[in-house]
Amino acid sequence: MHPFDEAITFQHHDRAGCVGQFPASYANMIGPFGGIIAAVLVQSVLLHPDRQGDLAAVTVNFAAPIGPEPYRIERQNIRTNRSNQHWQVQLHQQGHVCASATLLLTSPRQTWGDTELRMPVVPAVEDVPVLKSGVGLGWMERYQFRFIEGQFQPGSPEKHDALTRLWLRDQPPRPLDAVALVAMSDIFFPRVFVRKQQMMPAGTVTMTTYIHASASEFQASSDDFMMGEARACRYQQSYFDQRAELWSRTGVLLATSSQMVYFKEV
Amino acid sequence: MHPFDEAITFQHHDRAGCVGQFPASYANMIGPFGGIIAAVLVQSVLLHPDRQGDLAAVTVNFAAPIGPEPYRIERQNIRTNRSNQHWQVQLHQQGHVCASATLLLTSPRQTWGDTELRMPVVPAVEDVPVLKSGVGLGWMERYQFRFIEGQFQPGSPEKHDALTRLWLRDQPPRPLDAVALVAMSDIFFPRVFVRKQQMMPAGTVTMTTYIHASASEFQASSDDFMMGEARACRYQQSYFDQRAELWSRTGVLLATSSQMVYFKEV
Repeated sequence: MHPFDEAITFQHHDRAGCVGQFPASYANMIGPFGGIIAAVLVQSVLLHPDRQGDLAAVTVNFAAPIGPEPYRIERQNIRTNRSNQHWQVQLHQQGHVCASATLLLTSPRQTWGDTELRMPVVPAVEDVPVLKSGVGLGWMERYQFRFIEGQFQPGSPEKHDALTRLWLRDQPPRPLDAVALVAMSDIFFPRVFVRKQQMMPAGTVTMTTYIHASASEFQASSDDFMMGEARACRYQQSYFDQRAELWSRTGVLLATSSQMVYFKEV
Repeated sequence: MHPFDEAITFQHHDRAGCVGQFPASYANMIGPFGGIIAAVLVQSVLLHPDRQGDLAAVTVNFAAPIGPEPYRIERQNIRTNRSNQHWQVQLHQQGHVCASATLLLTSPRQTWGDTELRMPVVPAVEDVPVLKSGVGLGWMERYQFRFIEGQFQPGSPEKHDALTRLWLRDQPPRPLDAVALVAMSDIFFPRVFVRKQQMMPAGTVTMTTYIHASASEFQASSDDFMMGEARACRYQQSYFDQRAELWSRTGVLLATSSQMVYFKEV
C-alpha cells in the first residue's frame, strides 16, 4: 500500500465517526504534516455513506498540535442540495478539537469553461535537479521536490520576495486524486522561510483549497509531475498569507489554494 | 444608525445564540447580499462573551437561500489558544442550516512586516465616474461603485478576461472595520458576468477572506475609498473561482479573498 493511502486509512469508520492515528511517515517538526491532516479530514467525508459529489472546496483550520495517539473525527452533513453538499468536520484528541474543516462537494455538469490564469513558463521537469532533502522530516521524503526558483536554503541572503516554483510529485509516484491534491496544496515551505532564508517557528493556521480538476483531468495527470507556485501577499503582526497554484505538466490548473500562517521572529 | 450597523444588529443575542432578520436594505436577487450574511456571521462571534482577539480569517459557506423571516445563529468556540481562537458558526432558518462559517481570531503582536503584492497603478478616485446603478437591488445602493475597468454592461462583447478594478466605499460613508471589510470582499459581480457580459443564474457557494489591516490601519482608512480588484482563475463544470484584494487609497493591502461560485449557462 502507498504510504499516502496508509495515512488516510482509518482503523474504524462508520456513520458516527472515524478513528485513526497519524503515521510517522508524514511527520513534520511538531505533529503530522498539515497536508496529511487536511487529506484525512477530506477522506473522512468522502467515505461517509451520505456523501454526494466530488470535492470542490475545503477549508481546514489547524487549531492545536496533533499527537501520535488515536484521533476521532466527527462529520456533519449540514446541507444537501440538488447539485452540492456542505459538511462540517472536527478532529478530536483527548477531548479537544485539534482541527476542523468545512467541505463543499459538487456534482459535475458540463458547461463552458476557460482558464484565465496563465501557467508560468518554466524549465522542463528533466532539466531541474531533484532536491536531496536529508532534513530528516518524514513528510519531505514522501514527495519529490525539484525547485525551479525560490528554494529555502538557510543562511542565504534575504530575498526580495517569497515566490517559489517547483515540480513535485508523490514519492513513490501515485495516481492523482482530489485527496492527494489537497495534501499537495500544503507542500510549500512557510513563505517567511523563503523570504528571509531563515528558519523560525511557523505554522499554517487555516488553509482553503479549491479543486478545479475534473475526473478526466485527474486520470490524465496520472502519477506525473505537477508544477506548484506559491507567493505571499502580506506579512504583518506575526501572520502572513500564502497563495498557491498547482498545474499539471500539460498546463491544466488543477487546484488553487490560500492559507494564513503564524510566524515568530527569532 | 447606518444601514450596515442596522443590518448587523441582532434582535437578541446571548451566550447561546443570536436572533435577527435580514433587512430589505441589503437585498440581492434571491435573499440578502452574501457580504451582509458573512458580516452577520462574523458579528455574532465578535459579540460572544468568550471572544478573544480580532478577525484574521473567515470562511463562509452559503448553503441555501435565506428568507426575510427570523434566523438563529449558533456559534461554538472550538479552541482558544494563547494567541488565537477558532470558531464554528451556523445560521439556521426553519430548522435548516442556511449558512455556516469558520473564523480565526488572533491577538495582534508587533513583528517585522512587508507587502509583496503590488497595488496596481490606477486613476485617482476623483477621475473615475460614479456608477449610477438604478438596478433596483438594495445592496448595490449601499455602496458607491466607481469602475476603473472590468465593468459589467450586459450586451457588451465578451471580454478576454474578467479582471475588474474599482473604487468603492459604503454609502453613506462609514468608518471601516473588519466586519464591513468582510462584506466588501463580496461586492464584486460574478466573474462570469464580466467575462461574458451576460447575466445568468450564479451565486457564491463558499468565500474565504483574510484580514490584513491592523487596528491603526482601520483608523487611518476611516471612511475613505478603497480600491478593489477581482479576477477569475478558472471556470469549469458550472463553477468558477474568484480572487480579490481590497487596498486602502494610500496603498495598504487591507484584505485578500477567494470564493467559489456556481453558474448556470442560459
